[in-house]
Amino acid sequence: MTPTRSSAADGSGAGLAGGLGFRPATGADWPLIWPFWHRIVAAADTYCYDPAMSSDDGRQLWFGTPPDQVWLVAADQTVLGSYRLGPNKAGPGAHIGSASYMVEDAARGRGVGRAMVLHSLDQARAAGFRGIQFNAVAASNESAVRLYRDLGFTVIGTVPGGFAHPRLGFVDLLIMFHEL
Amino acid sequence: MTPTRSSAADGSGAGLAGGLGFRPATGADWPLIWPFWHRIVAAADTYCYDPAMSSDDGRQLWFGTPPDQVWLVAADQTVLGSYRLGPNKAGPGAHIGSASYMVEDAARGRGVGRAMVLHSLDQARAAGFRGIQFNAVAASNESAVRLYRDLGFTVIGTVPGGFAHPRLGFVDLLIMFHEL
Repeated sequence: MTPTRSSAADGSGAGLAGGLGFRPATGADWPLIWPFWHRIVAAADTYCYDPAMSSDDGRQLWFGTPPDQVWLVAADQTVLGSYRLGPNKAGPGAHIGSASYMVEDAARGRGVGRAMVLHSLDQARAAGFRGIQFNAVAASNESAVRLYRDLGFTVIGTVPGGFAHPRLGFVDLLIMFHEL
Repeated sequence: MTPTRSSAADGSGAGLAGGLGFRPATGADWPLIWPFWHRIVAAADTYCYDPAMSSDDGRQLWFGTPPDQVWLVAADQTVLGSYRLGPNKAGPGAHIGSASYMVEDAARGRGVGRAMVLHSLDQARAAGFRGIQFNAVAASNESAVRLYRDLGFTVIGTVPGGFAHPRLGFVDLLIMFHEL
């Protein structure tokens, strides 16, 4: 792949060990995503996805249907993460977007998640969304919650015990929102 | 159809002009549901569904995949409404259910919605859900919000301007929850 460099203007390149590049992904890129995507989903400690999901079902879920968009982020030709962005709901709810982010295990702590969230906010604005809603953030995923808060998301709702954590038991599920 | 009578025990038959009967629906029942379902969705003033959805897409959305369940409610052999119940999320979120209700226009004000919500709470308990979450209740749908509150749901979150009402413009979208 030949990723475009992220610009300093969107902040996504700031403070990174190596410059991160973003490019739109297609279904043909799924083999680059599936290995870390699958590990994250199988761990069942962050996402409300079926941990036993097949690769085909995962690809369908991740790529969705138009106008959903999927991005890859890479450094030095190595894919470090992927995110998806699309309408959170259909019809009268389609002006609010939602996004999901997956970071390659080995790339944790390098600002990949932060870069993806910032990139997705820019893309969401460009797509005309009036806000971004996260429907299901496990409260136990403290680093994600901290990152989202840091980037302007607020908790607008809490589902008590909404997440069955494999080690912690039932923890709250947070609904977060960022106006655009 | 030969609906079973709702029992007084679940409260769904109380105060109704005629006894309401519930029975599980299958895809073959869709022609009984689609006419009012379509009118409600096309009006685009309550549900975050694509108002231009085809009958086939509507049937797929309504019937979903196992373990989702769909019920019909009828009186005197006439279908007055339908509801769906299933996991709100997959994997670590699958212990919380979600439900949606559609009432035939001509049957409004007869307690059909109330009977369906009560029936769905019983079914949700029987299915082992630990709570029921509504993800997207338009705040402008005051009669629904009042009914849900009356039956024990509370607003656990608000998406500001999350619903594009065809006449009122952007109104809040409520997330409601009932522990089971």
